[in-house]
Amino acid sequence: MPPDGLSGHAFVFTIGRGNDVEVAALEALRGHLLGRDVEQLLGDMGATWRLLAHDSQLRWLGPEKGVMHMAIGAVLNALWDLKAKRAGLPLWQLLSTLSPEELVDLVDFRYLSDAITPEEALELFRSAESGRAERIETLLASGYPAYTTTPGWLGYSDEKLDRLCREAVADGFPQIKLKVGASLDDDVRRLRIARAAVGEGYPIAVDANQRWDVAAAIEWVNALAEFEPAWIEEPTSPDDVLGHAAIARGVAPIRVATGEHVQNRVVFKQLLQAGGMQVMQIDATRVGGVNENIANLLLAAKFGVPVCPHAGGVGLCEAVQHLSMFDYVALSGTMEGRMIEYVDHLHEHFVTPVVIERGRYVTPTAPGAGTEMLAASVEEYAWQGVHAGEVAL
Amino acid sequence: MPPDGLSGHAFVFTIGRGNDVEVAALEALRGHLLGRDVEQLLGDMGATWRLLAHDSQLRWLGPEKGVMHMAIGAVLNALWDLKAKRAGLPLWQLLSTLSPEELVDLVDFRYLSDAITPEEALELFRSAESGRAERIETLLASGYPAYTTTPGWLGYSDEKLDRLCREAVADGFPQIKLKVGASLDDDVRRLRIARAAVGEGYPIAVDANQRWDVAAAIEWVNALAEFEPAWIEEPTSPDDVLGHAAIARGVAPIRVATGEHVQNRVVFKQLLQAGGMQVMQIDATRVGGVNENIANLLLAAKFGVPVCPHAGGVGLCEAVQHLSMFDYVALSGTMEGRMIEYVDHLHEHFVTPVVIERGRYVTPTAPGAGTEMLAASVEEYAWQGVHAGEVAL
Repeated sequence: MPPDGLSGHAFVFTIGRGNDVEVAALEALRGHLLGRDVEQLLGDMGATWRLLAHDSQLRWLGPEKGVMHMAIGAVLNALWDLKAKRAGLPLWQLLSTLSPEELVDLVDFRYLSDAITPEEALELFRSAESGRAERIETLLASGYPAYTTTPGWLGYSDEKLDRLCREAVADGFPQIKLKVGASLDDDVRRLRIARAAVGEGYPIAVDANQRWDVAAAIEWVNALAEFEPAWIEEPTSPDDVLGHAAIARGVAPIRVATGEHVQNRVVFKQLLQAGGMQVMQIDATRVGGVNENIANLLLAAKFGVPVCPHAGGVGLCEAVQHLSMFDYVALSGTMEGRMIEYVDHLHEHFVTPVVIERGRYVTPTAPGAGTEMLAASVEEYAWQGVHAGEVAL
Repeated sequence: MPPDGLSGHAFVFTIGRGNDVEVAALEALRGHLLGRDVEQLLGDMGATWRLLAHDSQLRWLGPEKGVMHMAIGAVLNALWDLKAKRAGLPLWQLLSTLSPEELVDLVDFRYLSDAITPEEALELFRSAESGRAERIETLLASGYPAYTTTPGWLGYSDEKLDRLCREAVADGFPQIKLKVGASLDDDVRRLRIARAAVGEGYPIAVDANQRWDVAAAIEWVNALAEFEPAWIEEPTSPDDVLGHAAIARGVAPIRVATGEHVQNRVVFKQLLQAGGMQVMQIDATRVGGVNENIANLLLAAKFGVPVCPHAGGVGLCEAVQHLSMFDYVALSGTMEGRMIEYVDHLHEHFVTPVVIERGRYVTPTAPGAGTEMLAASVEEYAWQGVHAGEVAL
């Protein structure tokens, strides 16, 4: 623990079995960090990324994907949490104090230069430099738009679906999302109920959670076109760039959204190059931490695609809001067509849980990255003595 | 251990740090296997794939990539080793006894149907059914072509390079491979030495081990074009399908080879669809075992691309030869343009090490998949009491 008594926290997880695999991956990174000078690690976070992500031995387990890459992301995120706490700023604001040059230095442009160069990135940050202060004021005054997935889980009764849709609109959310793909008849019925509940013109996104092959996705989504989905999310394998592009062509003008399982910036790059993704859904815990998500935000800005992060509760909302808010202040400069997912799930275990008001994320002002869990929650739910997924530096 | 006393063995590894992460991933699969009926697991290996690969909780750690997917592949490979031993056949031959219908049942066509359907796969296997017996005779009589990477490592003196190139030709290898990408001047000098040693027209492949971005790859490879490389291997990120396609267009007629780090069939599919890979280099331990490599072989057959497996020693030769030989007997029906990599490295730790004669793999006849290590080697090199990467069922 550094002399100021502050500590950095982050998390990474699975949805059940396999958290112990992540813990082993975190352990494998220990040797890169123990005994290092914290000032040095935090002082050049671009170098810290390279220290972790460019280990040629650990790259054999990826490179830059899955278990090992998620662990690297968690360690970087914990360091960002510490850096923000030491600065006395929420992460979004800390990032917004950095110069365009400092921001570009955080990003690994390896394998990106056919889509964006450091020079182009610098230009993007520079062109958003004026107006940062005003946008910070706007953020602090009125927050960032959220949409809710709460009404749309499969298995709810039609009555519950109807009620939750109406509540979402009444609560001020500008969009809802429904899960689809189990049964076309059910999807048609549920979308009819939802559309009636929210009214014409209100955006309803749909999410297939990787269920389909290409032809099936095109057929199914077109069968739902009368309900005018705001986007179709994860229609197929997150690895299938060309599949996403074929689906996007086949379901236009309905947009394709994806990203929660996209493994790294190289796949995001291709989804944009191929026209396979009209909405980018970054996740705070899938890729190589804050550093790689800045690369992803840059790619989105370069290609003019809005970023609507994945945040299905469990701390993801707390973490990813900082990235969207940073993007608004220092990169895209707009909230137009952007919103952050919101699910009311397990916020109570975090030290600084998100606050939603009238369908918007209230801009956090507490120092840190939002990723610290309550000590009591960690204690209570730790399994076999392992603080699964938590990195404490 | 089953009542016949036989056991199935396989391995998965990193090149240093991180083997313990693989061990944790293998442990996470234990619950799917312990207490199961071995007859049932071996009797329907397609179902066994689904049991492991379709676990929705563990898929969060991928899906189907990296640490977790490699572990699934190792478990499947161990089961195939056991199945082959119980049949008293080498794996290549066991697979070659299966009917087209049985082979198709082993493959997961999820996310593949825009490139190949089960019906098309059945047709490919059926069209290769006649002639299986003759091809088995040919294999047993004369083996399968190998090429050697031994001369081409970076860091060898020019004299050693020259000598090893001449030895490779004298030993009967039909191709050598040189590492490139550290220094263009060095590459030009080394290729000149190699070309002089092996003579005009003799194939020299080059391997960049993911060093370049797209533009750099095109420029560098074209600067080596005068030496007529047989292929350029891993020019960029293994995730970059569109990058490989751009490079392939930019360096034609030089072919692009890749695969040792390709994470699954979905990426192989796209490399073929995009024209980003003119030589497919499957690896026995990267993807989801024998099952997924049959999918990969089917994709190669469908797109008419030769398969030249990755096999840099350490047991990879022992394992992957079975897949090429099965492909010859039951699928592609040809060795034309095909060869298996060979490196003379750590074969002594395997129960049935490969035998190379006159630049060819001698067809193995011992029962099993070739993946069993010597008990003494496992004992001697086990670390912290963990038999790193070995699955014994």
